[in-house]
Amino acid sequence: MKAVVVIPKKVGVEVKDVDIKEPLGKGQVRVKTLYTGICGTDRGIVNAKITFAYPQNGFNFLILGHEGLGIVEEVGEGVKTLKKGDYVVPVVRRGCGVCLNCKIGRQDFCETGKFVEAGIRGKNGFMREEFVDDELWLVKVPDSLKDYAVLTEPLSNVVKAIDELLFVQRRMVWTCEDSTFECRNAVIIGSGPIGTFFSLLLTTLGFNVYIVNRRDPNPTEAYIAQRIGATFINSSREKDKIPEADLIVDTSGYPSAFIPLLPKMKHNSALVLFGTVGGEKDEITSDLITSIVEKNILIVGSVNASKKDFEGALNYLSIWKDRYRDVLDKIITSRVPVEKAPEVLLRKPSGEIKTVIQWQ
Amino acid sequence: MKAVVVIPKKVGVEVKDVDIKEPLGKGQVRVKTLYTGICGTDRGIVNAKITFAYPQNGFNFLILGHEGLGIVEEVGEGVKTLKKGDYVVPVVRRGCGVCLNCKIGRQDFCETGKFVEAGIRGKNGFMREEFVDDELWLVKVPDSLKDYAVLTEPLSNVVKAIDELLFVQRRMVWTCEDSTFECRNAVIIGSGPIGTFFSLLLTTLGFNVYIVNRRDPNPTEAYIAQRIGATFINSSREKDKIPEADLIVDTSGYPSAFIPLLPKMKHNSALVLFGTVGGEKDEITSDLITSIVEKNILIVGSVNASKKDFEGALNYLSIWKDRYRDVLDKIITSRVPVEKAPEVLLRKPSGEIKTVIQWQ
Amino acid sequence: MKAVVVIPKKVGVEVKDVDIKEPLGKGQVRVKTLYTGICGTDRGIVNAKITFAYPQNGFNFLILGHEGLGIVEEVGEGVKTLKKGDYVVPVVRRGCGVCLNCKIGRQDFCETGKFVEAGIRGKNGFMREEFVDDELWLVKVPDSLKDYAVLTEPLSNVVKAIDELLFVQRRMVWTCEDSTFECRNAVIIGSGPIGTFFSLLLTTLGFNVYIVNRRDPNPTEAYIAQRIGATFINSSREKDKIPEADLIVDTSGYPSAFIPLLPKMKHNSALVLFGTVGGEKDEITSDLITSIVEKNILIVGSVNASKKDFEGALNYLSIWKDRYRDVLDKIITSRVPVEKAPEVLLRKPSGEIKTVIQWQ
Amino acid sequence: MKAVVVIPKKVGVEVKDVDIKEPLGKGQVRVKTLYTGICGTDRGIVNAKITFAYPQNGFNFLILGHEGLGIVEEVGEGVKTLKKGDYVVPVVRRGCGVCLNCKIGRQDFCETGKFVEAGIRGKNGFMREEFVDDELWLVKVPDSLKDYAVLTEPLSNVVKAIDELLFVQRRMVWTCEDSTFECRNAVIIGSGPIGTFFSLLLTTLGFNVYIVNRRDPNPTEAYIAQRIGATFINSSREKDKIPEADLIVDTSGYPSAFIPLLPKMKHNSALVLFGTVGGEKDEITSDLITSIVEKNILIVGSVNASKKDFEGALNYLSIWKDRYRDVLDKIITSRVPVEKAPEVLLRKPSGEIKTVIQWQ
Repeated sequence: MKAVVVIPKKVGVEVKDVDIKEPLGKGQVRVKTLYTGICGTDRGIVNAKITFAYPQNGFNFLILGHEGLGIVEEVGEGVKTLKKGDYVVPVVRRGCGVCLNCKIGRQDFCETGKFVEAGIRGKNGFMREEFVDDELWLVKVPDSLKDYAVLTEPLSNVVKAIDELLFVQRRMVWTCEDSTFECRNAVIIGSGPIGTFFSLLLTTLGFNVYIVNRRDPNPTEAYIAQRIGATFINSSREKDKIPEADLIVDTSGYPSAFIPLLPKMKHNSALVLFGTVGGEKDEITSDLITSIVEKNILIVGSVNASKKDFEGALNYLSIWKDRYRDVLDKIITSRVPVEKAPEVLLRKPSGEIKTVIQWQ
Repeated sequence: MKAVVVIPKKVGVEVKDVDIKEPLGKGQVRVKTLYTGICGTDRGIVNAKITFAYPQNGFNFLILGHEGLGIVEEVGEGVKTLKKGDYVVPVVRRGCGVCLNCKIGRQDFCETGKFVEAGIRGKNGFMREEFVDDELWLVKVPDSLKDYAVLTEPLSNVVKAIDELLFVQRRMVWTCEDSTFECRNAVIIGSGPIGTFFSLLLTTLGFNVYIVNRRDPNPTEAYIAQRIGATFINSSREKDKIPEADLIVDTSGYPSAFIPLLPKMKHNSALVLFGTVGGEKDEITSDLITSIVEKNILIVGSVNASKKDFEGALNYLSIWKDRYRDVLDKIITSRVPVEKAPEVLLRKPSGEIKTVIQWQ
Repeated sequence: MKAVVVIPKKVGVEVKDVDIKEPLGKGQVRVKTLYTGICGTDRGIVNAKITFAYPQNGFNFLILGHEGLGIVEEVGEGVKTLKKGDYVVPVVRRGCGVCLNCKIGRQDFCETGKFVEAGIRGKNGFMREEFVDDELWLVKVPDSLKDYAVLTEPLSNVVKAIDELLFVQRRMVWTCEDSTFECRNAVIIGSGPIGTFFSLLLTTLGFNVYIVNRRDPNPTEAYIAQRIGATFINSSREKDKIPEADLIVDTSGYPSAFIPLLPKMKHNSALVLFGTVGGEKDEITSDLITSIVEKNILIVGSVNASKKDFEGALNYLSIWKDRYRDVLDKIITSRVPVEKAPEVLLRKPSGEIKTVIQWQ
Repeated sequence: MKAVVVIPKKVGVEVKDVDIKEPLGKGQVRVKTLYTGICGTDRGIVNAKITFAYPQNGFNFLILGHEGLGIVEEVGEGVKTLKKGDYVVPVVRRGCGVCLNCKIGRQDFCETGKFVEAGIRGKNGFMREEFVDDELWLVKVPDSLKDYAVLTEPLSNVVKAIDELLFVQRRMVWTCEDSTFECRNAVIIGSGPIGTFFSLLLTTLGFNVYIVNRRDPNPTEAYIAQRIGATFINSSREKDKIPEADLIVDTSGYPSAFIPLLPKMKHNSALVLFGTVGGEKDEITSDLITSIVEKNILIVGSVNASKKDFEGALNYLSIWKDRYRDVLDKIITSRVPVEKAPEVLLRKPSGEIKTVIQWQ
């Protein structure tokens, strides 16, 4: 079958015919791939900037793809919750089997680091015509979401981050006098797909959302911000428009993007670190540390997601389909055929929010 | 009556006779001061390095002292839980009355910053022969602890920090396979009174404790470390002895003290920022940020304590009196008469862990 | 204007013209009523079986109605989040202003019992052509939900109950090996609107849902159960089909309905008590108490909802509109004009799930 | 060696010489027994009223004893935290190895019920001269507590119950306006060792404690109540003295003891069920259910304890040794030699709070 294939640590990517026979074991499901999304990690691997990618045992190449949506083609013995024709999204990370978090299905909190991740480290991904997977790690997708569920995986990571945030912020009273978050300002650094998901999700939770980038919004970004009631701020020009923040979410990974905003953080506020990037640095002063202490500020790095977060992501997709369908439609900026995968993987198309490969 | 008095923002301190008449209102208690402890904040005010100190309304000076222990002399009408002869420790911070946390007695999480703090900002402190206070903000001390309860206030801040830490770390499974913390390494930066309290408390909770300073331990520090089963590490000489950490607590406030240790932080680990200091900075790289993200690391600044933490501190003092009475005795390195207060306030006595002023 | 009016503690209800002038204060909003739902509490008041109903100060009658949906007609000075034409749902309970939970907007946990509730105790309800209310207690409804948002209030109580359940069940690991609730059985006693909302919500959260009643399902109930993948069990005939339960939700209030099911409860399971009814009793044995102890079982009564739960309810309505629009359509079994209100209030129409009064 | 031995399900108990050779495996420790406590479960087994007791695999008798304190005699290869001469208390329950709670060391929340418990089900207990156990399940005891640590096990169950209670009650604001529990009334039903531990622990946490029994206190009970500032109430004579309760803890297991008190429960209050007993019942009315619902009342059964709770119990023992040493001394009402074990096991000595067998 056709697959999008890389040699980890080498620049390049190709669509080629791979000869993989996957027998259908007990409790397993054969899935025909419908769509796979492309994200920065994929491009990092393709451009050999991400060095932690490695092939699955027994392979000398890696099939790319961790944002997948497929349709069940065949179910193995003992499969209970899925049947032919169901839409499914596969979970990306599979646990180490040793640490306590992996033992309870929270491999997003794996403590040993010895997990594998489909399409990234040690496990072939979903950019191929079909794959076999355990029922346990396939998330059933409501039929009504088949056009948007390719967004489930990237969104799941955002859902996990916010779920964790809301838990840790119960350390004190963080809700407003009416029990909601409507008095809270959230500043989102970055307006890519992840930044957009954070903006949508925090809007849905009642936060006043400010989207910050170093440039003016492109037309799509401007549309989305206006549509969801958020404010887009070009931090190069109008930094003083950034309000005092109860929450800052950094999706950029650049210390220079969020450290200058820390003085805006209010008492009891939180900074969620989500972005990762290389080759930059910034200065942190003891005055800043003092203000983190004096203001009870919390900072948390968040990565990956568990299966429950995939289900949470599907819930948000339904909510947004009902309220912001036009926004969801704008997030998927293009759907390209498999043959064009190398082109869009090597170079980000201009104006992209999310590019998706169409398999059928 | 005699009091230890400063003019905020001016260098200097004196013991002088102040003429304060405090009538005993409903629900109030008159307290004769027994001991008051001295900490870095007091010296910061005396040396005019702390600029946020200011006098109580109607005063042109500030009575110093936020670490107090007294004995009830007289109780006002309606007082229910205290009687003459009871030992008490007063809470330091009094809430803004406006924000939700202050409304529920969690003024340590005051959101407006409009609190007052006895002996620090806007409220006369406890370095005086007697004071009147509300029953509500006096913590009853068991008689058995009268020799150590002057340590309650500084310890309460440590109790709050750890209480909060244990709550936020319930975001995943942080306990070991036997439900305890015995597999967890805690690295404490600093070996002053606060560092010592963190070391004692985390030892009591089962953590493997490593005390880090830039120099060799003095004899008292060496004794305490050995006695509680902790390891003292001179980070200037033997940095490689610092283990991988599940928890780092910084009591120094110096970015250069804890940022170099961040690469030692394990998955799901936490960094508690407790120290505050001026005039220093260090560099933070995007690689470090990436590792905070990829490892789900949490950082939390913690300040002050609520009344429940004062009660928690008294519990720990009882535990340690039973198990480490010699350590508690070594923590109070000297008890000086009031007349010597200016001397020990202006300059930290050599070998000091905690200096205490004796009032009666 | 027309209003549906009762004299508390007297049988009867009428539509009459009331002369209420409500000036529009600062921060207030005038709302034109669109729909009001009818529930058991309304009928309890109308039939004088509910004895805790009483009029608003200065009135000798009570305007009924706590399940409202309206449209903003006019906004007062200082209103920020609402504008003319917005759809809104009013919060029912208003806090005592004294207890800590009311102070932080959690009047659903009022400790004094001195709250008022629109249409029930001490506050005129929403069964009238228009009303004035504080912006703070009006929940903005997305336009997309205008046809279903009359269900927000009853659903909000279900959202609160489940939100609380999920919090308290973090006392141990209650999620399955894949982090979801897909291995958990939820047994819902009752198939009225509340039972249906619990079934929908728990299905959405991944539970295997069993709906239990003492009779066969009517066609609508059968349709809904089948549609959402739940199993309807007639406990009179097929009690042995009720599975071992991780969760039982009683919406009936009859001890004889849920006490016989307690032996089905698994280790660590929970029983949510939601229903209230009069005049019945059942026996509880020490063997049952022993099994509650030995199995770490938790029981929690849940009432009312805070504003955040109204927002949560709107989110679920969007999810279900996307996935189960036909089910939502079947839940509202009839929309009657105001003139017919007394008739449907005095006697429950046969086959009713939710009857709604249409105001415009 | 000598051991206290029963044949499960047969009345009777004897001290006899058993021939058990336990080799010292890797990570294991040989422990010489110092003291073992006696509780109702032991007597239930001895009198064949407890029917779930069964011998360890390969044995036709069961060595009794789950409340143990010993001293390390020999440590096996790889043991890190214990050495000869250390005092230790063994954990009672050992997990099923299958369910998620057992996998993370929370066998007190075992979901399968397939655990074993030393001295009770499937595992020989500690009423013998020595035993071998895994380091992992031995709790190190500070030397200062060697005279009281035989109380660790029964106390650990109380610590777990309260730990869980405090967690679940974070569902709303349950603390008082000063952040403590000093405005809260706790009613403890029962004045045996467990009731006494609950009373001590809740006093230490700041609750106003009321101890309820159906009879007057004996002199020891009267002394303890007075000493810790609690109120003893004879519910047969002075039921109206029982206050409105924020917390009821039942240690009796009799529905007729706690159901009549439920109308005393305040909004947001909790009932902890801890006692187990046979052959009794009481009536529960729908009015009572309604009040549980309307008042958001929570009921939780609690059993067993994890290793962390044993450590917590040791902390409380240190606190109480410092503050209430006389009370601890009165709790151990007698220390008898092994030869007298059958006598005190078959029949509870009059005036007993806790009887202890002395092994060395």
